[in-house]
Amino acid sequence: MQANIQATYVQPAWTYSPGIWRQDPPVPHRDHVQSLTFVLIHGSWADASFWTPVAAELTRVGHTVYVPEYPGHGNDPNTNVSHSTMTKSIADFIIQHNLHDVILVGHSFGGSLVQTVSQLVPDRLKRLVFLNAFVIQDGGMLADEFPPAVVEQFQQLIKSSGNNTLMLPFPLFRETFTNLASLSDAQRIYNGVKPEPARPFFEKLHLKKFYALPIPKSYVHLLEDTAIPLGDPRYGWHPHMSSRLGLYRLIQLHGDHMSTTMLNGELVARKLYEAARD
Amino acid sequence: MQANIQATYVQPAWTYSPGIWRQDPPVPHRDHVQSLTFVLIHGSWADASFWTPVAAELTRVGHTVYVPEYPGHGNDPNTNVSHSTMTKSIADFIIQHNLHDVILVGHSFGGSLVQTVSQLVPDRLKRLVFLNAFVIQDGGMLADEFPPAVVEQFQQLIKSSGNNTLMLPFPLFRETFTNLASLSDAQRIYNGVKPEPARPFFEKLHLKKFYALPIPKSYVHLLEDTAIPLGDPRYGWHPHMSSRLGLYRLIQLHGDHMSTTMLNGELVARKLYEAARD
Amino acid sequence: MQANIQATYVQPAWTYSPGIWRQDPPVPHRDHVQSLTFVLIHGSWADASFWTPVAAELTRVGHTVYVPEYPGHGNDPNTNVSHSTMTKSIADFIIQHNLHDVILVGHSFGGSLVQTVSQLVPDRLKRLVFLNAFVIQDGGMLADEFPPAVVEQFQQLIKSSGNNTLMLPFPLFRETFTNLASLSDAQRIYNGVKPEPARPFFEKLHLKKFYALPIPKSYVHLLEDTAIPLGDPRYGWHPHMSSRLGLYRLIQLHGDHMSTTMLNGELVARKLYEAARD
Repeated sequence: MQANIQATYVQPAWTYSPGIWRQDPPVPHRDHVQSLTFVLIHGSWADASFWTPVAAELTRVGHTVYVPEYPGHGNDPNTNVSHSTMTKSIADFIIQHNLHDVILVGHSFGGSLVQTVSQLVPDRLKRLVFLNAFVIQDGGMLADEFPPAVVEQFQQLIKSSGNNTLMLPFPLFRETFTNLASLSDAQRIYNGVKPEPARPFFEKLHLKKFYALPIPKSYVHLLEDTAIPLGDPRYGWHPHMSSRLGLYRLIQLHGDHMSTTMLNGELVARKLYEAARD
Repeated sequence: MQANIQATYVQPAWTYSPGIWRQDPPVPHRDHVQSLTFVLIHGSWADASFWTPVAAELTRVGHTVYVPEYPGHGNDPNTNVSHSTMTKSIADFIIQHNLHDVILVGHSFGGSLVQTVSQLVPDRLKRLVFLNAFVIQDGGMLADEFPPAVVEQFQQLIKSSGNNTLMLPFPLFRETFTNLASLSDAQRIYNGVKPEPARPFFEKLHLKKFYALPIPKSYVHLLEDTAIPLGDPRYGWHPHMSSRLGLYRLIQLHGDHMSTTMLNGELVARKLYEAARD
Repeated sequence: MQANIQATYVQPAWTYSPGIWRQDPPVPHRDHVQSLTFVLIHGSWADASFWTPVAAELTRVGHTVYVPEYPGHGNDPNTNVSHSTMTKSIADFIIQHNLHDVILVGHSFGGSLVQTVSQLVPDRLKRLVFLNAFVIQDGGMLADEFPPAVVEQFQQLIKSSGNNTLMLPFPLFRETFTNLASLSDAQRIYNGVKPEPARPFFEKLHLKKFYALPIPKSYVHLLEDTAIPLGDPRYGWHPHMSSRLGLYRLIQLHGDHMSTTMLNGELVARKLYEAARD
């Protein structure tokens, strides 16, 4: 034992001659950046412009970025779209553009689309990245991921919409989607919001295949996101939904649900790259 | 469907001509700072000087700041004050100084005073801000918010005080109120501490009105605060007590229970402003 | 009451003459750095070189650092070592080098050794520091701290080793021990990993004395560590295991289980000092 200890005792040099250690520590080096192909899937109450600053930054540093806008969003006036229609449109987009080795990124509602799209075109995908995004259980639906009182509130708003859409009142949006932003930024973001087609919130998703796919996964967690009320461990982005991924890579940053990504593209692009690289 | 996809496909430009995107991302801009009126309510084992660095910084950037010191603290030798006496003194202060549109900020014990003061002068208040502060349930008391073993320890300390006060031993204070500070800073802060009147810890608070008030609320969470023991989800600042606020704005920063606010006024003032602005 | 309020009303000066306050706030000062003696205990799948950058930095700023490599690690080919053999070797090391007032730091598995070593040489120790390290219950074992599904996976890997060791597959290691690192850094770290002697994972530890020792304790929490799966409150570094320490000082930083310490010695050394100082 003592011999072993003597042999493995690490250098009195650390004690008496610190100088020589200055040459030794591994120098953190800037790794060669991988050139990746990103497909970015926005969430509810958003359109492709949600990703503009992130896409610009990812492109600037050498990646290839696609931002499909799926049915029921942007200029599409159809408010009765289903989750499977959205899913198919994104899968078609990936096939039509002949994309391979895709980093498929979903934000918020987009997470559920990452799950369903992965079932249609698994061979095109290199990694799935969830940015404070839903990870739905097999047979579950989005509405399962909110406390009943919130779902009830949503249902009243949907009923009063007259066209099966859900629009968030500004005070709720300001405090829980853009809590870190200034009022004028929050208002500007809110002004771009259209009522969200409600149907996909209540559609059961079949995700058995997703949960069997061997595609690597990452979860990027924005730490100040309160879009799903905190305090009940049966709800929430992380670790509640993230842990459903099984083995995944965790990346965290300070940010809220919506404004950080829209206002600080450089930061979020950097974290998405850390999530996406091999 | 395909037409829709084609129509909403966002620019091959992102892929092939990153240059043009450099002009497009929304530039985060420095919003015009709102000039706000803050009333800052310190917590237990503190007096108005707790806020000096924060108040100085808030004032420097253009806000108006009031720091009332309530009965049983500072130079007031009365150790038998009640929660309602403290509450009334702060409400009177707001009325006497003819304050309106007040951002009422409470730290720690001060959170329970924010709750009760808001019931007396709701029309004077623009927003309630809790900085790792108690949010007591209707009919509850401060002692409810500590595990029974801690309450028992407190009761022994109170008993041994001889005058119904509670003084924290330095080792406890150093590790759980000033964990991020140097020893000399922790000692300097501790040297300013007076035994805390214990009566309000065990007084039931009637807060039905507070929970019905439509005044906007924010919770500012210091991430390294261990003043309430961690690890039991039935206790703690955030998300346990914060979630009682219902809809609230979350702001987070790295910091401990007491020293960060007293030593890094600039940081805490910035976060309080982010919590307080419209 | 009113008189009291008048007396304690803190300065209209804050409102009207901010200038004078610029001189008043306590200036955060660089405290004189204490010169401390660190003994750094690495964890599983590591050897003394794990601490090289941290030890270099601690030494550079004036501390004395010892990094014992314990049996079953580094150049010791013995894979059948017990927890008590490891414990005794470290205690012997401390005695042989005549160390006193030691800051005993354990990372990961090293936390359990900090616990057992403290029982053998309590009078030599000034403070115990846990860096995302195990804090085992009296009568418990390391295997208790992983969900049963993970333990089962470990047992299969041990069985297939043929020599009672446990080696982590690279994909698991990359995502949960080095999630913040580049692939090349993760590979470089993994290339230095040797299969870990499995016996100590399943040995019951008698820790009654540890839980009665009055030695101050700190827990340094790396926020992006997923080496123990997250999402189940019955498992995890902090606050699950940290809270077993009773009174302890919490320090937090962003980092993963292994790469941050090995690649960013300056940051981790600074946090260890904040954890270690009086």
